[in-house]
Amino acid sequence: MSESNKRVRVAVIGASGYIGAELVRLLASHPAADIVALTADRNAGHSLETLFPHLATIELPRLVKIEDIVWRDVDFVFCCLPHGVSQELILGFPDHLRIVDLSADFRLSVDLYEAWYKHSHLAPELQKDAIYGLTEISRDSIRSPRLVANPGCYPTSILLPLIPLVESDLIEDTSIIIDSKSGVSGAGRSLRKSSLHGEVSEGAHAYGIADHFHTAEIEQSLSVAAGHPVQVSFTPHLLPMNRGILSTIYVQAKGDAAVEELKGALKDRYADEHFIRIVDSDVVPHTRHVRGSNYCLIGLYADRISGRAIICSVEDNLVKGGSGQAIQNMNVMMGLDETWGLDQKPIFP
Amino acid sequence: MSESNKRVRVAVIGASGYIGAELVRLLASHPAADIVALTADRNAGHSLETLFPHLATIELPRLVKIEDIVWRDVDFVFCCLPHGVSQELILGFPDHLRIVDLSADFRLSVDLYEAWYKHSHLAPELQKDAIYGLTEISRDSIRSPRLVANPGCYPTSILLPLIPLVESDLIEDTSIIIDSKSGVSGAGRSLRKSSLHGEVSEGAHAYGIADHFHTAEIEQSLSVAAGHPVQVSFTPHLLPMNRGILSTIYVQAKGDAAVEELKGALKDRYADEHFIRIVDSDVVPHTRHVRGSNYCLIGLYADRISGRAIICSVEDNLVKGGSGQAIQNMNVMMGLDETWGLDQKPIFP
Amino acid sequence: MSESNKRVRVAVIGASGYIGAELVRLLASHPAADIVALTADRNAGHSLETLFPHLATIELPRLVKIEDIVWRDVDFVFCCLPHGVSQELILGFPDHLRIVDLSADFRLSVDLYEAWYKHSHLAPELQKDAIYGLTEISRDSIRSPRLVANPGCYPTSILLPLIPLVESDLIEDTSIIIDSKSGVSGAGRSLRKSSLHGEVSEGAHAYGIADHFHTAEIEQSLSVAAGHPVQVSFTPHLLPMNRGILSTIYVQAKGDAAVEELKGALKDRYADEHFIRIVDSDVVPHTRHVRGSNYCLIGLYADRISGRAIICSVEDNLVKGGSGQAIQNMNVMMGLDETWGLDQKPIFP
Amino acid sequence: MSESNKRVRVAVIGASGYIGAELVRLLASHPAADIVALTADRNAGHSLETLFPHLATIELPRLVKIEDIVWRDVDFVFCCLPHGVSQELILGFPDHLRIVDLSADFRLSVDLYEAWYKHSHLAPELQKDAIYGLTEISRDSIRSPRLVANPGCYPTSILLPLIPLVESDLIEDTSIIIDSKSGVSGAGRSLRKSSLHGEVSEGAHAYGIADHFHTAEIEQSLSVAAGHPVQVSFTPHLLPMNRGILSTIYVQAKGDAAVEELKGALKDRYADEHFIRIVDSDVVPHTRHVRGSNYCLIGLYADRISGRAIICSVEDNLVKGGSGQAIQNMNVMMGLDETWGLDQKPIFP
Repeated sequence: MSESNKRVRVAVIGASGYIGAELVRLLASHPAADIVALTADRNAGHSLETLFPHLATIELPRLVKIEDIVWRDVDFVFCCLPHGVSQELILGFPDHLRIVDLSADFRLSVDLYEAWYKHSHLAPELQKDAIYGLTEISRDSIRSPRLVANPGCYPTSILLPLIPLVESDLIEDTSIIIDSKSGVSGAGRSLRKSSLHGEVSEGAHAYGIADHFHTAEIEQSLSVAAGHPVQVSFTPHLLPMNRGILSTIYVQAKGDAAVEELKGALKDRYADEHFIRIVDSDVVPHTRHVRGSNYCLIGLYADRISGRAIICSVEDNLVKGGSGQAIQNMNVMMGLDETWGLDQKPIFP
Repeated sequence: MSESNKRVRVAVIGASGYIGAELVRLLASHPAADIVALTADRNAGHSLETLFPHLATIELPRLVKIEDIVWRDVDFVFCCLPHGVSQELILGFPDHLRIVDLSADFRLSVDLYEAWYKHSHLAPELQKDAIYGLTEISRDSIRSPRLVANPGCYPTSILLPLIPLVESDLIEDTSIIIDSKSGVSGAGRSLRKSSLHGEVSEGAHAYGIADHFHTAEIEQSLSVAAGHPVQVSFTPHLLPMNRGILSTIYVQAKGDAAVEELKGALKDRYADEHFIRIVDSDVVPHTRHVRGSNYCLIGLYADRISGRAIICSVEDNLVKGGSGQAIQNMNVMMGLDETWGLDQKPIFP
Repeated sequence: MSESNKRVRVAVIGASGYIGAELVRLLASHPAADIVALTADRNAGHSLETLFPHLATIELPRLVKIEDIVWRDVDFVFCCLPHGVSQELILGFPDHLRIVDLSADFRLSVDLYEAWYKHSHLAPELQKDAIYGLTEISRDSIRSPRLVANPGCYPTSILLPLIPLVESDLIEDTSIIIDSKSGVSGAGRSLRKSSLHGEVSEGAHAYGIADHFHTAEIEQSLSVAAGHPVQVSFTPHLLPMNRGILSTIYVQAKGDAAVEELKGALKDRYADEHFIRIVDSDVVPHTRHVRGSNYCLIGLYADRISGRAIICSVEDNLVKGGSGQAIQNMNVMMGLDETWGLDQKPIFP
Repeated sequence: MSESNKRVRVAVIGASGYIGAELVRLLASHPAADIVALTADRNAGHSLETLFPHLATIELPRLVKIEDIVWRDVDFVFCCLPHGVSQELILGFPDHLRIVDLSADFRLSVDLYEAWYKHSHLAPELQKDAIYGLTEISRDSIRSPRLVANPGCYPTSILLPLIPLVESDLIEDTSIIIDSKSGVSGAGRSLRKSSLHGEVSEGAHAYGIADHFHTAEIEQSLSVAAGHPVQVSFTPHLLPMNRGILSTIYVQAKGDAAVEELKGALKDRYADEHFIRIVDSDVVPHTRHVRGSNYCLIGLYADRISGRAIICSVEDNLVKGGSGQAIQNMNVMMGLDETWGLDQKPIFP
């Protein structure tokens, strides 16, 4: 990979979380991106290395407060702040910036946002122009917009297999049941009892049953794909591991569509995609097959019950489900090679 | 707990696996059971402590070969051999023995067994008289039989919540989708690449998609409960932990039955059961809430989609899903207090 | 085990941590102890089950504030508060109470305490009468005192093998190097970044190098055993597991004492101890051999370098290194069978 | 990084283990290396992807038997076979090949090898010309030899900090005590009970006490550095994690050398090294700070006991302790940039 002539000066807003750190890890090998600003309000003045010693060997600017960024030196912003905070902040960003926001703030229509998050959206004008950046699905529509909303970790693993099936009208869209399993890094580095080692290791449980925020995001995209409202059952589970999402999705083929047709639709749709692989029927995707990488592996299998199919979709929640897809989106937005910074092969064991 | 006057002299056949060792751990605190024989063919002559140092503080007989057991000194046998081996062996056991078999050999009707396991059953006569010992469901019918088939680990966690719902005709029995997650001790202590630490930790995957043996066991019991054939989607997953099964089960309420009715049916059915707890709606069962104990916790929740319910059922696969239920069955068969040997509280963290 | 006629009414102060919960788990099977009060100031009014669902099946009083305990109904107190808090509180306890304090507040002489903890001791009078309760070593001296200081988790695993060797003058007491490894439950359930799953799993590190508080406790006890001041190198490490301490201890035999003499001294000293086992030379203790139990296993091996010995000592830090030893101390103090409530066999895997 | 004009055609012998797979992962990003042959005798004819699905996205030749390699198409060989097998095989390799052997076969002098491994060396002539390739120490001497012996995983983490201290005569070389902790990938992918998830997770233990093979390798190198025979205490431990070695090393400064002098010696020696970092005194290296990368982090701390120092050295056993250092050695041997293929930043969490 040769260095690009065109260079992108990048700011990472909210670098003290796992998503921010993962952006830095991946951007370190990006041939055209230079990290020029890193913010972490409570740790301003320190190096990122004090928060993340594993990044000590990367040459980086010190952490600053957001208000101390010199915006004219920045071309591109990754915003890694919690939802509710991003929307107000981005409103104040200078116009020349292009932005990928990794919060939930710009993923939903204003109506849907307010219905699920129970408060008024603070930047509804911005929201209208933001594009939902599931790269393989929205590639063409994210080239020019200023602001792209990076999809949630669960929705990425779920929508990639489901959108082609719903668009092709191959499945009963009332039949979709999604059982997702995630590692704990999805909960971030904030201090919660439920993220302690003692509370996560050697056990498993469901959470957010029937009311997880990501349901809105999944249903919004599937409804667009179907051309009419689609509802799904979505139940996330916490597994005793750090990285990885496995979504097991149960669907019913429409009419007499064979399960092989469903698989064919996925294979066709993703035949030329670098980061998506539809695996053979004798292979089952493990989250460990993609750890640390931007790949999404999808398997689709016929159930014993005629017409039912079982889909297994795996990704690294911090990469394809977060920072990796954000960089992929930046690459598309800035006209760079889509794989730059994302060439890391999975690490196993 | 006082020692019983009536004592049961117990043999554990196949003590070199996790299930055998767990029987020994639990029986060590049983007030009426004495372990008089332990077999492990390849390790005959050694103490169990050489295989399982954690059991070193329990007074135990040496390991012997099966043919060296003095049967007249034995009242009760736990048979922990692999399926296919148990059936022939038990055929040769003296008549005075009562037996819990922990393999799959006597769980299915002969027809179903032969259809799934693809070979002739070697003890069809025995099979006819064997009773499937899901204790809370079959308690009355296992008091007198000589041979009880201990349920599989997955089916226990699945049938306990589903049988009352199917019997009450409260759910569409064509709608049942079961997504189970298990720790790796379910695969036993045998040497398989897929059980190595490097292949299990920090990742998750489905396996046995659409053809796991336990499907037969689940469908057989649900069909009896329904009074007609029932088919289910059942997909097991391997999680990076040693103990615990979590089954997430998706069902559709029948007609206009409310989800609260489903929950009521479970609460009624299990109101007096010591080892089964239907948790409140604001609680979600974790496998870590039952680790090391014989409890099964069941939560039932209304989905956002009207009429759908989500059930979470957890157990320790080696206890309620294996050795614990086997002892519970022995207690019933021998007229002992059903909780003897099973008083261990869950260990957390 | 039959129920005792003499019953002990127990209060657990600070029941919201892992040590408190473990006391409750173990006391649930104690034939003579009744838990009559549980405190957790911020959670007063709730049941312990809301904090620890794994204890839901134990009949327990609601959590109260300390000031709401009816002391006349209490015989015995386990105090599980952080160091610095215990000392002031216990000062105010009614005289009839017997107490095991699980903090560091009464383990050290007042001088040593103030030197290491850098503040004045608030209950120096109480401190003078408190006895350091390493049960097997101090059994006779804890029968009558009102207040026993429960040893720290690391010191228990270290002092049990070292005290007999130092007392017998068999090792060079300037040679002692202690490399300890602990699971994360030793850090408790409080919210710290360093206890998050992401920061603990899949990695290891030393901490508290050359200044861990437990050094004072180790040196104080070894100095008493030697009859002169003894200093040690002590380096604790955090391992990616919940329970267990492994202390690897490097010592030099004195003069031409053979390593077998060292081992003999341990075997002699602990020959009649129920909870301490000196393992054979072809066995290496694993922390998993004692998980959930009150045992301490000790192996002593000759190094290739003449006169050096390597000691491996393992315990469950929450049981023998905490709540288990506290109950053992209560049993001794109250004249009960020392093993009551501590019969749990190790749980593996 | 631009592609090199000079290309190296690489064969990996024994690609079915973790070390082989890790070589492939790292070489995939090497700008001048092309993998032209992969062997795995029992899996010849299959793709590496069938053994290691995480490598499915790398373009690779099929697995072949060793005898089917077309040697004229190969420039460089990584030999990843077990010790005892490598020595005979390499004897038969064509002369034009340059080789890094990752087994123990060429690390020790023939005498030492035969004393520790208890059988005659089959290629003593080759052994004489082989160079021990601890890259930072032996860089100049490995440029021209045909065969380089890659150091063991433990010795790498131990010798890097100790050689400069011994060479500078700053420590008492009779005082060295090494307590190493390793993840389980060091035991490889072969089927052993001791590598099962149930036997590794949630626990820790020492092994190979006083007789681990790597002791010979450590002592041989330290004796060369000292100019006279040096013996060490070395005790490895297995931790419940996949990757990473932490060696905690206890040493005594010589005469009145201050601990700061020891640290200075390390800082001086490694000031210009890309992959070795001496961390500040307020930082403690974690294995997770180097996971997946070729870095070795070393901390050196003064003990409370005057003159004693504690060293913490961490590496990823599969990278700097195995495949990474092997590639680093290839780079030196072939006159390439030493960091090529080794730019991966650590992955955390």
